[in-house]
Amino acid sequence: MNNQVDAHLIETKLKSQELFSGHFLHAFRDTVALPDGSEATREYFVHPGAVMIIAMLEEPGQPLRLVMERQYRYPVQQVMIEFPAGKLDPNELTLQCAQRELFEETGYRAKQWAKAGVMHPVIAYSTEFIEVWFAKDLSLSERQLDEGEFLEVFLQTPEGLQQDCLNGKVTDAKTLTGMFWLQNVLQGKHALEWVSAS
Amino acid sequence: MNNQVDAHLIETKLKSQELFSGHFLHAFRDTVALPDGSEATREYFVHPGAVMIIAMLEEPGQPLRLVMERQYRYPVQQVMIEFPAGKLDPNELTLQCAQRELFEETGYRAKQWAKAGVMHPVIAYSTEFIEVWFAKDLSLSERQLDEGEFLEVFLQTPEGLQQDCLNGKVTDAKTLTGMFWLQNVLQGKHALEWVSAS
Repeated sequence: MNNQVDAHLIETKLKSQELFSGHFLHAFRDTVALPDGSEATREYFVHPGAVMIIAMLEEPGQPLRLVMERQYRYPVQQVMIEFPAGKLDPNELTLQCAQRELFEETGYRAKQWAKAGVMHPVIAYSTEFIEVWFAKDLSLSERQLDEGEFLEVFLQTPEGLQQDCLNGKVTDAKTLTGMFWLQNVLQGKHALEWVSAS
Repeated sequence: MNNQVDAHLIETKLKSQELFSGHFLHAFRDTVALPDGSEATREYFVHPGAVMIIAMLEEPGQPLRLVMERQYRYPVQQVMIEFPAGKLDPNELTLQCAQRELFEETGYRAKQWAKAGVMHPVIAYSTEFIEVWFAKDLSLSERQLDEGEFLEVFLQTPEGLQQDCLNGKVTDAKTLTGMFWLQNVLQGKHALEWVSAS
């Protein structure tokens, strides 16, 4: 971002007040100076950041399939279809987190990893970012769910997932965004740089 | 959702406590029964819902271009490239909201509208949904920004936006998700049902 060029858009923090610190949510209200010098307040949630994993299973005699999850999401009161994802632990690198979450939630380990990009899911009221990793060369062992975590793992072809994204069965924005990257990777419009990491 | 089939995933509310009610954020902590009967807490924001508009400008002698915005988003401390979007007013229909937000923020009115789908941007801690509308047959008059709203409007081809989504210049998840729908519409993989509304 070029601060000089964007001076007509940028807001500057004047003061910050903690709204509350819950078990999970940590919220602030900042007073900011708007570009015209007037003041406004901005309320937002501080999030540690997260990763999402698009894990591609290639098995002999099978089409390419993706490792997907079904999980009840309380705020939206629905079982959602999602790519595996999870929050960063303190001081954890994003690739470490991607490896940990994929294994804990699905039991899969991957020998090759590629970072596709990053998304900001909720720019109006959260600092959250989600880094998107592709994974391949998979092997399966037993998953290690956190206590109180209930989710189903299933396999789906990219074509099946794309249809479910377009027909409204998938509404999770991070998963829709992952499908955008996956579609472009599979169409040869986006090259991934794979690294070995197990 | 089939509640009987998904009983092994679903969480049930036991009690709800308001955490706080800010100018913008309204947060709750609910105690829930997990599928195994144990208890957990879920903290989340209640959001009124929103719409996003993919407005397609077709002018003689010009390629198809999209009506885009650049806006500073305080929680992520960046100027973000976005499709126009905004929150529902009380009792407002989503198409009304889409028409209002497109006009207020960009000055464009559209004669034809098509609903593409819905996304949930942050299923772990917000009730927010965003309905995605396509708009075409555009005409331009003077925009009517809310007080304290500062944003730039610009035009971009779908190919240019797709590149910016893949190269990391666009990181807003709703816009990445919109690009997914747009790409599939333009590739003939997703049919829109247009309705006249001005």
